[in-house]
Amino acid sequence: MTYQTGEGRIKAIDSVLTAIRGKETAVLTTHTNSDGDGVGSEIALAAWLRAVGTEAFIVNPTPVPQSFQFLIPDESWVVDSTSAEAQELCDGADVAVVLDTGVIPRIGRVRRLIDGLPTVVIDHHPPGDRPIEGVSFRDASASATGELVFDVIHRAGGPWPEIGDLAMYVAILTDTGSFRFSNTTATSLRIVAELVSRGVSPDEVYRRIYGTVPRRRFHLLESSLALLEVDEEAGIAWMTVPADQYDALGAIPDDLEGMVDYPRSVEGVEVGLLFRQIPRKGIKVSFRSNGAVNVNALARRFGGGGHVRAAGALIEGPMDQVRHDVTHATREAVELSRSGH
Amino acid sequence: MTYQTGEGRIKAIDSVLTAIRGKETAVLTTHTNSDGDGVGSEIALAAWLRAVGTEAFIVNPTPVPQSFQFLIPDESWVVDSTSAEAQELCDGADVAVVLDTGVIPRIGRVRRLIDGLPTVVIDHHPPGDRPIEGVSFRDASASATGELVFDVIHRAGGPWPEIGDLAMYVAILTDTGSFRFSNTTATSLRIVAELVSRGVSPDEVYRRIYGTVPRRRFHLLESSLALLEVDEEAGIAWMTVPADQYDALGAIPDDLEGMVDYPRSVEGVEVGLLFRQIPRKGIKVSFRSNGAVNVNALARRFGGGGHVRAAGALIEGPMDQVRHDVTHATREAVELSRSGH
Repeated sequence: MTYQTGEGRIKAIDSVLTAIRGKETAVLTTHTNSDGDGVGSEIALAAWLRAVGTEAFIVNPTPVPQSFQFLIPDESWVVDSTSAEAQELCDGADVAVVLDTGVIPRIGRVRRLIDGLPTVVIDHHPPGDRPIEGVSFRDASASATGELVFDVIHRAGGPWPEIGDLAMYVAILTDTGSFRFSNTTATSLRIVAELVSRGVSPDEVYRRIYGTVPRRRFHLLESSLALLEVDEEAGIAWMTVPADQYDALGAIPDDLEGMVDYPRSVEGVEVGLLFRQIPRKGIKVSFRSNGAVNVNALARRFGGGGHVRAAGALIEGPMDQVRHDVTHATREAVELSRSGH
Repeated sequence: MTYQTGEGRIKAIDSVLTAIRGKETAVLTTHTNSDGDGVGSEIALAAWLRAVGTEAFIVNPTPVPQSFQFLIPDESWVVDSTSAEAQELCDGADVAVVLDTGVIPRIGRVRRLIDGLPTVVIDHHPPGDRPIEGVSFRDASASATGELVFDVIHRAGGPWPEIGDLAMYVAILTDTGSFRFSNTTATSLRIVAELVSRGVSPDEVYRRIYGTVPRRRFHLLESSLALLEVDEEAGIAWMTVPADQYDALGAIPDDLEGMVDYPRSVEGVEVGLLFRQIPRKGIKVSFRSNGAVNVNALARRFGGGGHVRAAGALIEGPMDQVRHDVTHATREAVELSRSGH
């Protein structure tokens, strides 16, 4: 292996290894509504722990999404956090490991379950309010938490169960948007190179994650594209998901994944928006910036938030009104960025 | 740099370096209808040659596509192969380097121009009929010719002009379909890691290549999705580009890039097809396989060909007839693959 872990990470990794090595039972968890990085990191660490003799279980605040269930090698690895079994398991565990978040509110109902346990955090998010206490390996320069788990296993000298390699690849693939977001670094690419050299097949994984699209999603895309609007002069584009089609097709929130990238990728666009009616809740707006505009600030004006280039808000009011207000504010934000502010 | 060139490539690289080092003038060329790998490899090698004191010029059989013009740092690097200047340049050159193809028919009109020159081939395609003679570095295990150019410059110990790093990244990015085709290897990922560590920005390049989509392309996609058909049982899906919309939108062939990936990515599909009427020529059919079916063999039955997972054919006849014949043959091919043949 030609990969070398960055010097700056070694100390935190060693403290994590000290805290989790040689234990009988470990409980792993991640944030609510887990994604590829949360689940991938859990599976990779669990597979490694089991390979070195620790019984590792995954207890999440919300179920593993359907799209990442293929990473679970055996149902017995995952325990429903609402079950009596979960309570019993956590009562008898030696350590809890929180992955892909470092703050208390994000682990939901699992907080109570692991309250008395020594806790380890491995996470690549910026430190938030109400951090989880205990030993931690936090590094916001990492593309994904899966990258940090790789470093832990690498420092431990392996072993490298096959499912763990796949899971770490999925973690980095999904959190970097297939190696195209700005968090894609030389380090993350070196790590996926190692994973591929050990047998992970990029085209098979890609097909598994992005290449098995339910048919309804294409119909939803078709009817949403019919509502694509572009203001070329202002450098903004927006698309609306028609509520009647959404219902008629039996669509689910997963079907909207990546849809905001259509308006965002229109030639000359600085900010792309997606509007979607959520019954009894309001209009969900997704904001994507191509760099110049801080859409986190923009979304905050509507009670939402997120990252500088990707944010969202849930806004009350009729669709026409919300669309008018948001596109107006977005035009202003692009103009401001163009005038150098 | 942690990257190491594979031992198996060293001998060919050294023969190439001997052939191109210390020359006054070099002419670089690639195949007709060049792509990101052809143009990227040319720019990278030209930038390196110029940095070590050789005047390097690009003389292609067909113009550099609009989408890759941003890689050309100065117009004077590229000389029109139909001009008297090109003839004069080639007459006085010391060496010709053919990139991203190794066969005579593919370099079109440039063949006559470089006929009397010592010739070097750098290419990642399987050896074809009528190979170009001379010194060569051919390796079909490489994801892209840009990867082989990287190895040449790496072996030479640099220098690494910025535009060359960008050009090699584009070469590998485009030929691996953004690191998701089956040709994505640990070596290609290690190389892009090096390029990123030297300053290439994955999100900026991705946006440049895939994120500036002309508006008409979304309208064309919308009307094509309306003609998406799925035969779930057979495991095939096909989409037809409506000819009237294509004309009305003023679409160009570039606008169809990647469109066959929509039918291909439908859940449960083994083979995706795209049909398009070409005036006075017939129906252009694109075939994409998710692995089990050899679409090269399938396309050959219709007078076309290509690769095992990506092929095409131009078929005479009315749309309905061609679509019927091709979907019928595709169903048979999937069936055959399922029965284990």
